[in-house]
Amino acid sequence: MIIQLQQGLPDNLKENILKQVKAIGYKVTEVKTQEGDYLVAIGKKDFDIRSIGQLPGVADIHRVSDEYKLISRKWRVAPTQIDLCDGVVIGEGQFSIMAGPCSIESERQIELVVEHLKANQVKIMRGGVFKPRSSPYAFRGMGLDGLKMFHELCNENGIKIITEVMQVSQIEDMLPYVDVFQVGARNSQNFNLLDALGEAQKPVLLKRGISGTLEELLQAAEYIFSNGNEKIILCERGIRSYENAYRNVLDLNAVPVLKAKTHLPVIVDPSHGIGLRDYVEDMSLAAVMAGADGVIYETHQKPEEAFSDGQQTVNFQESERLIKRMRLAYELRTSF
Amino acid sequence: MIIQLQQGLPDNLKENILKQVKAIGYKVTEVKTQEGDYLVAIGKKDFDIRSIGQLPGVADIHRVSDEYKLISRKWRVAPTQIDLCDGVVIGEGQFSIMAGPCSIESERQIELVVEHLKANQVKIMRGGVFKPRSSPYAFRGMGLDGLKMFHELCNENGIKIITEVMQVSQIEDMLPYVDVFQVGARNSQNFNLLDALGEAQKPVLLKRGISGTLEELLQAAEYIFSNGNEKIILCERGIRSYENAYRNVLDLNAVPVLKAKTHLPVIVDPSHGIGLRDYVEDMSLAAVMAGADGVIYETHQKPEEAFSDGQQTVNFQESERLIKRMRLAYELRTSF
Amino acid sequence: MIIQLQQGLPDNLKENILKQVKAIGYKVTEVKTQEGDYLVAIGKKDFDIRSIGQLPGVADIHRVSDEYKLISRKWRVAPTQIDLCDGVVIGEGQFSIMAGPCSIESERQIELVVEHLKANQVKIMRGGVFKPRSSPYAFRGMGLDGLKMFHELCNENGIKIITEVMQVSQIEDMLPYVDVFQVGARNSQNFNLLDALGEAQKPVLLKRGISGTLEELLQAAEYIFSNGNEKIILCERGIRSYENAYRNVLDLNAVPVLKAKTHLPVIVDPSHGIGLRDYVEDMSLAAVMAGADGVIYETHQKPEEAFSDGQQTVNFQESERLIKRMRLAYELRTSF
Amino acid sequence: MIIQLQQGLPDNLKENILKQVKAIGYKVTEVKTQEGDYLVAIGKKDFDIRSIGQLPGVADIHRVSDEYKLISRKWRVAPTQIDLCDGVVIGEGQFSIMAGPCSIESERQIELVVEHLKANQVKIMRGGVFKPRSSPYAFRGMGLDGLKMFHELCNENGIKIITEVMQVSQIEDMLPYVDVFQVGARNSQNFNLLDALGEAQKPVLLKRGISGTLEELLQAAEYIFSNGNEKIILCERGIRSYENAYRNVLDLNAVPVLKAKTHLPVIVDPSHGIGLRDYVEDMSLAAVMAGADGVIYETHQKPEEAFSDGQQTVNFQESERLIKRMRLAYELRTSF
Repeated sequence: MIIQLQQGLPDNLKENILKQVKAIGYKVTEVKTQEGDYLVAIGKKDFDIRSIGQLPGVADIHRVSDEYKLISRKWRVAPTQIDLCDGVVIGEGQFSIMAGPCSIESERQIELVVEHLKANQVKIMRGGVFKPRSSPYAFRGMGLDGLKMFHELCNENGIKIITEVMQVSQIEDMLPYVDVFQVGARNSQNFNLLDALGEAQKPVLLKRGISGTLEELLQAAEYIFSNGNEKIILCERGIRSYENAYRNVLDLNAVPVLKAKTHLPVIVDPSHGIGLRDYVEDMSLAAVMAGADGVIYETHQKPEEAFSDGQQTVNFQESERLIKRMRLAYELRTSF
Repeated sequence: MIIQLQQGLPDNLKENILKQVKAIGYKVTEVKTQEGDYLVAIGKKDFDIRSIGQLPGVADIHRVSDEYKLISRKWRVAPTQIDLCDGVVIGEGQFSIMAGPCSIESERQIELVVEHLKANQVKIMRGGVFKPRSSPYAFRGMGLDGLKMFHELCNENGIKIITEVMQVSQIEDMLPYVDVFQVGARNSQNFNLLDALGEAQKPVLLKRGISGTLEELLQAAEYIFSNGNEKIILCERGIRSYENAYRNVLDLNAVPVLKAKTHLPVIVDPSHGIGLRDYVEDMSLAAVMAGADGVIYETHQKPEEAFSDGQQTVNFQESERLIKRMRLAYELRTSF
Repeated sequence: MIIQLQQGLPDNLKENILKQVKAIGYKVTEVKTQEGDYLVAIGKKDFDIRSIGQLPGVADIHRVSDEYKLISRKWRVAPTQIDLCDGVVIGEGQFSIMAGPCSIESERQIELVVEHLKANQVKIMRGGVFKPRSSPYAFRGMGLDGLKMFHELCNENGIKIITEVMQVSQIEDMLPYVDVFQVGARNSQNFNLLDALGEAQKPVLLKRGISGTLEELLQAAEYIFSNGNEKIILCERGIRSYENAYRNVLDLNAVPVLKAKTHLPVIVDPSHGIGLRDYVEDMSLAAVMAGADGVIYETHQKPEEAFSDGQQTVNFQESERLIKRMRLAYELRTSF
Repeated sequence: MIIQLQQGLPDNLKENILKQVKAIGYKVTEVKTQEGDYLVAIGKKDFDIRSIGQLPGVADIHRVSDEYKLISRKWRVAPTQIDLCDGVVIGEGQFSIMAGPCSIESERQIELVVEHLKANQVKIMRGGVFKPRSSPYAFRGMGLDGLKMFHELCNENGIKIITEVMQVSQIEDMLPYVDVFQVGARNSQNFNLLDALGEAQKPVLLKRGISGTLEELLQAAEYIFSNGNEKIILCERGIRSYENAYRNVLDLNAVPVLKAKTHLPVIVDPSHGIGLRDYVEDMSLAAVMAGADGVIYETHQKPEEAFSDGQQTVNFQESERLIKRMRLAYELRTSF
């Protein structure tokens, strides 16, 4: 059950609501975000919710039978819009393109990508500076210095930045230089990181786990929301399977099903989803038609020379064609 | 290695070619289809293929490193076109829609579906008369009598029929009433059935196994081709996974990858692929954009009352909208 | 609901029972096996089963809530014992060892294996004469002639034979030469084959599908039983997964869970279950301790030269050690 | 390539070795653990390793073709023994039993478990105080206060403690009260946590990821070792699959295969591996026979009332029987 409180509610009224709800035998979690104050009440006893709904200070009250609550579309029907400022908004009704290299490698590389993005009116650049790698001996990214350089060049050009955060202790340092924090597949159930990102006042793109269920992804988002941050984007990026013909199985079923379950935006990562450069376009277009609110993919001036993920990275020529075609596909989709 | 023979080759020339190839230490399978005569030679020894290529009677010769040979696009680049007569052709460059109920239930049901398909210019009707069911106590279909009725009504209306065959002994009886034999996911490695369909002179739609790899699907198609039948359609229908939010995971990655590997047409079954009626449209549109040569889906006048698979079956109104949208999506795709 | 009828029941009494059960609104399947006559009644209406139980001719009546009925341990608590004659019995309380090559290759090979089995008091030899192969160009087995030779040599030496049947039309020819029919993983939902084996009066070993659920395996067994054959053995042989370090994942969880769900014997195939010769012993011993009623594994005089599956086949020295250790492990287990 | 340095090597000699290895074009990681000093050199160039091996200060040098190096059995053949003091050692040749509740709940609960363990000569107690939970609204454990209480009661009774650590910032606080840190399945690729545990001077039990490959598990262990900590235990705890009859599929194949690949001890968690109390014993015994160096399982005085995982937790009576039988099985296994 979600109880939305009136804005600026005096403490005594809030305490009274809390008292009444607990008296029924419900466990209550207080949630305060930039957008509102909520009480999430969990319990089994059946009662007339109007008895709580009529209390002074209650703006709205809803039963939500899902395990996740605040991110459920059963509660909030209107889609969440995430404003990155300067006219860049992520959410249903927009089509967000996020492109860039797997790893930030050099100033020159960033310049080339930024130029490519600007030429194609793409407003969000991806690029990793902290890289989770299977082997401890592999390249782990340029770190905070790389991020600062990445930020400076993008900021000058009106490009927003999305980049991966791997641990709680990085958040504070990264905060000034990041527009969207990305949580990678391997950290999709790193609950301490999710909690901490709930407290950070920046949007979070949350990738589905390597074999994550939709339920787990939604619960992970609930961690972030219930800890204070409503600005969450979900990302389908392929799941692990027995099939060896590609890196992962891009599960586009997840797109319409997630869109029905939550008010949060849902985007797709076709680069990891298939892992093969030649088919990134096909899968991106399919994602658009499945109803995705955006696509995040890997591009590089010379994919063959990329520090990581080169085999799934498109070059700028392919990227340009992809962008044009995705926009045409999105236009058709929205005409339906 | 595939050696294509000249049409109407005298026996002594063919024997000479066979002798020479075997002399190198290769195992040879003779393949004779309605379209041509081939020798598939398997061996490891390296030699100059021109020594065979120049023999009298050899029309063409190719090395194919894939485990499957005759269906490989490395050998035959041009896409296979399957002519069902009366202007109904399946293959790259066409967009084939196959729609109808999971099970054939009654004369009245067939009439209603046929009327719906005609009104929407759909030329191929699906419908099962032999139903593979997990439980021996479930409805197993109307059988041959149902098929005859199905055929009569469709034939009168210029609609082609696709229906599942479950075992070798059914082929002969079904042959006059079927335009395309469907091999279901559970029989995708029923090699005796594949062999027998290789001998039947009717097109075969081959579904990917429940957890089938692309390699296995392609090898299954090779069974049919190498036994004499070139008219094969591959079908992605969702794979089994750990995710319980839907019946299967529709693996659209398979579409562009299969299209690159084989010259055979590739179609998609979104009904089984997601198993949830509300999302069949999204996944069908995604399939079109991923490059599918067609879609096969379940529709019924009253899905709630269908004998089987009602939860993944769209009604005629939904079907009509779906058909229109798929055609627009296909039009956009072919404009690229 | 299962209604067990008295032996030799007059037709009029049986008709009366059928009439009464149908009158309640239940669908009834009559099942006649060598061991008994049963009615399987499926329906939803709640009623006092004593009203049927007291009818003349009813020996016993049970509600079974599982989807499968006759093979359920909720109905029949005592474990099924399958007598292959000459003192060879498969079932709980025995530990059955079935060993031999993947493929029958030659008379000499059979002689060597038989000699090895006799020396170790193993009474059942496995060996394939009809081989399901992914590629149409691979060795498909020696066929019926191989089976006759296999049978002759085993029969002379008091060894029972288990071998795979791939299609309905083979059953009649194979019947005189086979002690146990094996249904392979790829045919685990070949329902026509299961139906036909229900009519054959020989035991059937049913392998779990490549990604088969326990429920599907049990339902497949129900096909055989409900078509007249109670002599069924279930076999866990590894499931397909994302892990590439071995061929399959041997799912030993299945052993105690299947044993609790059904009265049928459950055996394990460690050779396919891990696919690596060096670890067949470890997994065999683990299977024994998990509660398996037997183990079926591949052995060959020279695994390196085997026509198929050599990489998962143990030699006779390894086999001898394995047999001794499994027997010690089984002894310990039964002492608990 | 691993270069083991002589103990107490003067800096100039070490610098010389580093210089020579880098001169060949290899990237070098210096590793210093309590047990030794190593250089891990990664490169592709082929050269005579004796040229490095003969340098002053080199104790030993080995090529290791695996992606993981220091944990590979190709380098170190002798099994790692982890001494928890007071005669409690984990490693090949021992059989370690770790038992206790999923969650630490109260002083009384700890007392009861400790008493049960002492009565059965079990020396290591498991119990979670920081609990990773899918839902943010679920019980997350008693935290550090719970750990202190847990430690005090165990310490008094000569029982060692294993408990889960979820994030880097917890390590320092937990360190005095923990004998073995457990890294849970969801954190198996939390590389920052692994790095930090490499610096902590306490043994680490590393669980396989929810869909983790053996390769990933081994690489995760390499993170810990290469950051300074050799005391690592690997744990198979079941993998995610399509099968819904149990919580996970306990992959016992992993046991002998991991034992062959690494010198680290390998233990099994049957409680999570099957998730069903009734079958924990069967799977534990199977684990012993598959070659596990120990078993970690959940027990509670009243499983029905446990705060978490009650459905897979055995009571003390079941636990006592399990311990006895595992020891008998281990005795048999070591007699082979």
